[in-house]
Amino acid sequence: MIVILKPGATDEQIDHVIERVEQLGYSAHLSRGSYRTIIGVIGDEESLRSEPLQALPGVADVIPVLPPYKLVSREGHAESSVVQVGSVPVGGGSLGMIAGPCAVESEERMVRIARRVRQAGANILRGGAFKPRTSPYSFQGLGKQGLEFLRTAGDEVGMPVVTEVTDPRLVEVVDEYSDMLQVGARNMQNFVLLREVGQTAKPVLLKRGMSATVTEWLMSAEYIASQGNSKIVLCERGIRGFDSATRNVFDVAAIPLARQLTHLPVIADPSHATGRPDLIPACALAALAAGADGVHVEVHDMPEEARSDGAQALVPEQYEELFGQMARIAELMGREIPAAGV
Amino acid sequence: MIVILKPGATDEQIDHVIERVEQLGYSAHLSRGSYRTIIGVIGDEESLRSEPLQALPGVADVIPVLPPYKLVSREGHAESSVVQVGSVPVGGGSLGMIAGPCAVESEERMVRIARRVRQAGANILRGGAFKPRTSPYSFQGLGKQGLEFLRTAGDEVGMPVVTEVTDPRLVEVVDEYSDMLQVGARNMQNFVLLREVGQTAKPVLLKRGMSATVTEWLMSAEYIASQGNSKIVLCERGIRGFDSATRNVFDVAAIPLARQLTHLPVIADPSHATGRPDLIPACALAALAAGADGVHVEVHDMPEEARSDGAQALVPEQYEELFGQMARIAELMGREIPAAGV
Amino acid sequence: MIVILKPGATDEQIDHVIERVEQLGYSAHLSRGSYRTIIGVIGDEESLRSEPLQALPGVADVIPVLPPYKLVSREGHAESSVVQVGSVPVGGGSLGMIAGPCAVESEERMVRIARRVRQAGANILRGGAFKPRTSPYSFQGLGKQGLEFLRTAGDEVGMPVVTEVTDPRLVEVVDEYSDMLQVGARNMQNFVLLREVGQTAKPVLLKRGMSATVTEWLMSAEYIASQGNSKIVLCERGIRGFDSATRNVFDVAAIPLARQLTHLPVIADPSHATGRPDLIPACALAALAAGADGVHVEVHDMPEEARSDGAQALVPEQYEELFGQMARIAELMGREIPAAGV
Amino acid sequence: MIVILKPGATDEQIDHVIERVEQLGYSAHLSRGSYRTIIGVIGDEESLRSEPLQALPGVADVIPVLPPYKLVSREGHAESSVVQVGSVPVGGGSLGMIAGPCAVESEERMVRIARRVRQAGANILRGGAFKPRTSPYSFQGLGKQGLEFLRTAGDEVGMPVVTEVTDPRLVEVVDEYSDMLQVGARNMQNFVLLREVGQTAKPVLLKRGMSATVTEWLMSAEYIASQGNSKIVLCERGIRGFDSATRNVFDVAAIPLARQLTHLPVIADPSHATGRPDLIPACALAALAAGADGVHVEVHDMPEEARSDGAQALVPEQYEELFGQMARIAELMGREIPAAGV
Repeated sequence: MIVILKPGATDEQIDHVIERVEQLGYSAHLSRGSYRTIIGVIGDEESLRSEPLQALPGVADVIPVLPPYKLVSREGHAESSVVQVGSVPVGGGSLGMIAGPCAVESEERMVRIARRVRQAGANILRGGAFKPRTSPYSFQGLGKQGLEFLRTAGDEVGMPVVTEVTDPRLVEVVDEYSDMLQVGARNMQNFVLLREVGQTAKPVLLKRGMSATVTEWLMSAEYIASQGNSKIVLCERGIRGFDSATRNVFDVAAIPLARQLTHLPVIADPSHATGRPDLIPACALAALAAGADGVHVEVHDMPEEARSDGAQALVPEQYEELFGQMARIAELMGREIPAAGV
Repeated sequence: MIVILKPGATDEQIDHVIERVEQLGYSAHLSRGSYRTIIGVIGDEESLRSEPLQALPGVADVIPVLPPYKLVSREGHAESSVVQVGSVPVGGGSLGMIAGPCAVESEERMVRIARRVRQAGANILRGGAFKPRTSPYSFQGLGKQGLEFLRTAGDEVGMPVVTEVTDPRLVEVVDEYSDMLQVGARNMQNFVLLREVGQTAKPVLLKRGMSATVTEWLMSAEYIASQGNSKIVLCERGIRGFDSATRNVFDVAAIPLARQLTHLPVIADPSHATGRPDLIPACALAALAAGADGVHVEVHDMPEEARSDGAQALVPEQYEELFGQMARIAELMGREIPAAGV
Repeated sequence: MIVILKPGATDEQIDHVIERVEQLGYSAHLSRGSYRTIIGVIGDEESLRSEPLQALPGVADVIPVLPPYKLVSREGHAESSVVQVGSVPVGGGSLGMIAGPCAVESEERMVRIARRVRQAGANILRGGAFKPRTSPYSFQGLGKQGLEFLRTAGDEVGMPVVTEVTDPRLVEVVDEYSDMLQVGARNMQNFVLLREVGQTAKPVLLKRGMSATVTEWLMSAEYIASQGNSKIVLCERGIRGFDSATRNVFDVAAIPLARQLTHLPVIADPSHATGRPDLIPACALAALAAGADGVHVEVHDMPEEARSDGAQALVPEQYEELFGQMARIAELMGREIPAAGV
Repeated sequence: MIVILKPGATDEQIDHVIERVEQLGYSAHLSRGSYRTIIGVIGDEESLRSEPLQALPGVADVIPVLPPYKLVSREGHAESSVVQVGSVPVGGGSLGMIAGPCAVESEERMVRIARRVRQAGANILRGGAFKPRTSPYSFQGLGKQGLEFLRTAGDEVGMPVVTEVTDPRLVEVVDEYSDMLQVGARNMQNFVLLREVGQTAKPVLLKRGMSATVTEWLMSAEYIASQGNSKIVLCERGIRGFDSATRNVFDVAAIPLARQLTHLPVIADPSHATGRPDLIPACALAALAAGADGVHVEVHDMPEEARSDGAQALVPEQYEELFGQMARIAELMGREIPAAGV
């Protein structure tokens, strides 16, 4: 950690900072520049973070030197992790290709869509049973029944299933029905929920928050890992931007950046990132070319009847076509697409 | 709701849209322009929102005409609501002046700070017992003990107390100890939590999410209100921006904007908005001049020992001085600062 | 154009809006909804834009229906344009692969780098002679001498050259020396400069402004086109974001979006978008996979001696390796990389 | 400047950095931490900025310690500057109250509006003759004739006038007709124009760019000052945000922040910041409460006939009412509003 002092900091203030640093068990390394004085603080940075050196008189700025996450960091864990979802490996050269409707709407429709996406090549099935909706008056998902329909569909077509959990009290039941637990963008900093899913043995799909920095996203993964569960797949799904032409800004550079900083797999969700079926294919391909470990796409066979986010779903025919293109890019990038399997 | 068709939309597509609109029980009003055709959809917009007209072939855009919130809307509820916190009225000309440390750290310190802020003029006491922290390794609050210390301090000095609740399973206990429940910025779209606090009888302090539009913020208030609890105070606390010089961007215009759109009181939190004690006073005064119904400020008597956010706390002397200035602006704006009282 | 009236708009106000619309030569189409009244305005939207209908009493909102650009719009010009830079076609399946140093520093170095990037496969050479720098104390470029060195290098290795022009008074001299004129991100809305380059016969490389919407970017292209010069290549180079880990946010979805809205070619600049050599390759490949008509990369053979933006340059070896990967993606996408040639 | 090395930096790389630092005439101060090594670079930071130490092998990050601006910095110039506009002092306790229409439309209207705003209490008259418009098809201002009408109006009512200059070739003529030169938000980083106005003797109104950090804004002021002209008034006018409810986000905290960092006066423009007449008054008052040295408001007597930005103008009656409120806040803040005077 580096402490930068204010221009007019007095010797007394400097001494007070050094004293405090040493009191906390660190050693201080003073460096007087022509215009500014800086103090290097040497020791375990982690425990220092919670000490408000910033509030000491004469201090202008405190700059951390180390990343604040450890378990998920690639420093000290150079090899890429592979997260097993059902029998599908994600990461380390294997792509997790997730597809399915935004919300589970009926058993029949769920099975029908599952069949189509599996046929196209997808290896993990998605479907929302508990839907976080901006409006209390919108369809909130079928709840437990939705979990059952999703499970049935997964079993029927032989795909592991992923579904969102939004309530710490429901982690147990969602864990029972699904092969992977999704934490949505709006809950990326719902630390209570993160801790709860960190105590299960299931892989977790952690979406990036709408205005989360990559560091904050990794800190949320660290929360899960700190509870003992390191089977985490990160998912870039667009950040908030100023141009209303797209729903979000698809931050494709966050994929290679995150993959550099963490050993965990990182996939992309171009459906939420763009909110527009006409832009999803280009962004899906971009994600794979940028090194993503998988792609998550919403597919619905009757978008105009969808009860949630229909306007951003691809129809199965579009997904099939896209899958062919994704497979070619994947091959070029030296990646494999494992077959589905529970 | 207005449906705008694509330039080349065929008659068949137009007919299909009209048919669908009528099927749903609305009436369609066709208007063929020189370049584009638009269809006005007449009827209760609410239920239409969940119908993905956007996904119909030939449709370019669907534009809602009404705000998506009803209970919290000023349309149909012109008079400003007053929310009672303990015996302190907030809104309708009365200012809620909330102050206290970021986290409750000990009973003694809590009582000591409470005494100082009450003396300065504050009428509601704050203190965090359950702290949502970016890092799993940071101090997470004293938990239930923190609630007890806060309650003791409030009773000792005669101030109602507000504290954050982050877990739906803890709403009951937080409700028991405090006079107002805070939903933090990171939980603004934790709909599970919103519903839970909406089922209590306590006033709720709803902070704006870091990248929430004003409409989304009001939709979150609507979630609470939809459960029967309309005692909601909104709090602008800064939105994410591109300039790292301040922690957030204090969106002062959101205060008059929100007050125009909703009948609920709207206060400001310049502590989190700026993250810098040197900018808090200017922003606190700006908030009141812009019409805020109160100001929330973090105060700590030993910032350098604070276990959370010490670097952004004012010391009691600074708060006292600021309070004097705030009182003068309040008077100019025709507002009253009620005395504290449980 | 659609005019939405306020909830309580009186008949008198509605009549006034209609009267005003008709006065301006348009026809008004009234549609009274259950809660709101809307008026469709039919006629040439263009001239209506400058009329502040928004300011009429009773008006809540005015929503344009047509895009505000015409010459650059794909509506009415479905075929993709090909822009010829020297003898290199850009667009319509041909990729413009631009490379070179941020700033021209010496003739010798310019020629040396030119040789390397040409060998790697680049077909257009870049180098800045007039540098827009955030600080008045930074190196501002070699000026006219820089133009000469760039021209010499281009001629020596047989590549067309592109360089930035920042001053309307210098358009003539930059036009004389270069094959393509660049308008930088900071000047995207320097309308005076846009008009001036619109009066030359040279192709223009128009970078997207740091906080420009895609519509605003296309409006700036429209400025150039409105002066008679439609040889415009658009360049996405990152938008401002909240995460300081990268210099900008590379908005990859803007590439397919812009290509949908305009017939002009759209290329990408991952060097400025990320500001980090370690992220440039992934973003360059992502851009091509998303359909970009070319990629612009800064290359320097001694980054640590570079006088401008050295820290974001690739060295020639890195560029060569990247070029091989880009060529493979290009082939997969069915694109060709024409050879350089003046 | 502080150089932070990568975790695995070798001794050879560290030596190379030190060697390079010393070669450049600085002294290096090595500090090996438990996990990371840092090097303090001691000497004049200014000239170091252009050296890409960041590009040296083994370097993770380079952190500047000093602000990059000097002439406009409050460090070494503690007293607030007063900028004289005609006979109106702005800064140091005196408020510059600028008002007038967005664009000059006719002599008669210009004089009429001037009379009204002067009567209300404004002391500087504004009016655009050269308008930077997003669309090439919008009204671009009356040009030189507009300057004449503005001058006439200013002289008639006895107010100094300010108008925007967008073209370096027109600085001379705008200088001739007006008392203050405005550089608009879109031109904040038009360095060519900044240099040109820096060579006049007239005060300059420098608007903040739409996505400029406060540091970049001050760097643009430094450009002007570096040419010899330090009569600069900064103007916060809103930054780009994600909520389309307002035109921009009024960054009120930037006012006290900038006033802390620079000795130059800082005023606010709530008209462009919000784009909505209903929010202008609240933001104008907020600006003054936050310490602004003045307020800039667009006023038009027939907004619905305005040829530019009519929808965001106040009518004279609204401005009068607002002025009364502003005067009361000003008094409370200990500020004076000098009378107009050429």
